[in-house]
Amino acid sequence: MKILDSKPAEDGFYMPAEYSPHYGCILIWPHRRDSWQNGAYAARKAFARLIEIISRSEKVIVCARYEDYDSAREALPDSVRVIEMSSDDSWARDVAPTFITNGKDIRGIDWGFNAWGGLYDGLYFPWDKDNKMARKLCDCLDKDVYDMRRFILEGGSIHSDGEGTILTTEECLLGKGRNPELSREDIERILCDTLGAKKILWLRRGLYHDETNGHIDNICAFTSPGEVVLSWTDDTSDPQYEISEECLRILENSTDAKGRKLKVHKLPLPEPVFITEEECSGLDNMDGEPTRTPGERLAASYANFYISNKHVIVPGFGDKNDEKAVCMLSSLFPDRIVLGLPGARDILIGGGNIHCITQQIPEFR
Amino acid sequence: MKILDSKPAEDGFYMPAEYSPHYGCILIWPHRRDSWQNGAYAARKAFARLIEIISRSEKVIVCARYEDYDSAREALPDSVRVIEMSSDDSWARDVAPTFITNGKDIRGIDWGFNAWGGLYDGLYFPWDKDNKMARKLCDCLDKDVYDMRRFILEGGSIHSDGEGTILTTEECLLGKGRNPELSREDIERILCDTLGAKKILWLRRGLYHDETNGHIDNICAFTSPGEVVLSWTDDTSDPQYEISEECLRILENSTDAKGRKLKVHKLPLPEPVFITEEECSGLDNMDGEPTRTPGERLAASYANFYISNKHVIVPGFGDKNDEKAVCMLSSLFPDRIVLGLPGARDILIGGGNIHCITQQIPEFR
Repeated sequence: MKILDSKPAEDGFYMPAEYSPHYGCILIWPHRRDSWQNGAYAARKAFARLIEIISRSEKVIVCARYEDYDSAREALPDSVRVIEMSSDDSWARDVAPTFITNGKDIRGIDWGFNAWGGLYDGLYFPWDKDNKMARKLCDCLDKDVYDMRRFILEGGSIHSDGEGTILTTEECLLGKGRNPELSREDIERILCDTLGAKKILWLRRGLYHDETNGHIDNICAFTSPGEVVLSWTDDTSDPQYEISEECLRILENSTDAKGRKLKVHKLPLPEPVFITEEECSGLDNMDGEPTRTPGERLAASYANFYISNKHVIVPGFGDKNDEKAVCMLSSLFPDRIVLGLPGARDILIGGGNIHCITQQIPEFR
Repeated sequence: MKILDSKPAEDGFYMPAEYSPHYGCILIWPHRRDSWQNGAYAARKAFARLIEIISRSEKVIVCARYEDYDSAREALPDSVRVIEMSSDDSWARDVAPTFITNGKDIRGIDWGFNAWGGLYDGLYFPWDKDNKMARKLCDCLDKDVYDMRRFILEGGSIHSDGEGTILTTEECLLGKGRNPELSREDIERILCDTLGAKKILWLRRGLYHDETNGHIDNICAFTSPGEVVLSWTDDTSDPQYEISEECLRILENSTDAKGRKLKVHKLPLPEPVFITEEECSGLDNMDGEPTRTPGERLAASYANFYISNKHVIVPGFGDKNDEKAVCMLSSLFPDRIVLGLPGARDILIGGGNIHCITQQIPEFR
């Protein structure tokens, strides 16, 4: 593994869209008892179900801590590779490398990771094990890596259309917990240089009460070049309404890197999801304090789906809108089987969903 | 990774010779403070030198514990892959899989490992991390594995000529610390079934004072089909003399699986090597007791070389016989560069040498 200091764009590399062909997908076996209730028992069941589906059409690599290795190996299909790797939590989207391609080979980007805001408003401390994973994963895959640790970024805060457009949010990338010393222009330049992009599309805010400071991957996603889904509610009394409205206005008045006007599909949100007292009681305290409060609203969204080579796997909340979301996405991904994943609530309790716990590895020759 | 219960020989697999083409080589970054003096500082330097040479002609994978990962990554060339993996010590020959081939693909064998004798006369306890490595390495390499954990064997106790002959020692395989419930015939059958062999050649004993219970890889090695080197001394007062004499008689009166008489080359031993007081003082105690005593004889041997795709790397002890050994091996490996590794004494203090800390991965398509 070479550690590279050059600019990926100048080296001919760019970030492909998630709907481009994959070699595989990376996940991390959940273990953190203040993130996942009851020793991650229910979460592991949901992860295993998801992994089984992804493994039907691409390679899956699951990172497990030494002490969780046997549990992962037992729970997962033979075709899934389990590799020993230490982690602080289980958000592969945010700690695994962002992979870029030159159309032949792939390389990883090793962004700095500070647990969604570091000592300013991060979610846990320390995060050093997470921060080391991107490079280790590149080494495992025998791929070179760009050293971008000086720039704090999580994979969940960017989406690429694969044709030069990056979608992100100001709430996250311009917040005080990531790179407060950099201007919006600095950040645009870094994203363009690193992701081989031509245009950064900024939404203002992410999903209501999303503890990642508004990751894009919970509110909006490309379904093809020029088309996005946007998390939507018609309930004007929901604080989410105003956020979604604002996103819609921005998106409808934007063009992408190719000069196309974006087509926006309103993806319904489930009814607001609140954590129960029983669910909270299954979570360990962190530094003596509970990590969740009974009745707290969780950032549930169907936009947090994963696009594998053959499937689109969508969180299923047991909500009346589950079916609507699957139907809408089915029409937007005509070449893929769109599936709702039961038990996505058990992932949501950790603070994210299917997209947050996966990271695709693009195809390479 | 599929876990297989069938017999490799029946599946068309066999153990190729070390001088067959390699995909690569596995090593483990040393860390154990009661095996390696001064926090493994000197050993790591010797490992790094060896790894650099091997990496010139094949892929190298180095397993490092989480806490040693950065030290390994810093010390080793970019082209070497460092993967996080827990271990009890650093003997890849004995804990990594034995790889077998069908001429196209490779599979691993996951033998049981009990630290060279278990609670009978093993060298440390516990050994569970080591025992889990073979399977993890197969998963990392995306190769299927045969479950042979019920049979205790270390890679260092067998040599294959790649043409149906396995060389081993009675001292090790018939000892009380491995598989005392199995007869010699049982063990022959298991070796033939698992390694795709037709004939097991038994020496009686391994090198004098070798704490592995006489591993073959410190006393004798194939240099080509039908030819071996045998560790040799002309000093009749050395207890090694009688052992080498006995081996010579057995080898000269043996034929291999193809019916060939073996040609035996006497590979000189270095002058006996004794551990110094200073070296001992750099080793931590184990369970309150020293692991070595000043003046203790170490099992130094030139036969503990590694054959990479382009080199034969031979322990260098700063002995007058270093050059003789390199010259003899140069004539026996005319297509390879034969090199003496300075600092092999720092590996020897751990209890083995170059062959013991490496495990080749045969070429696959």
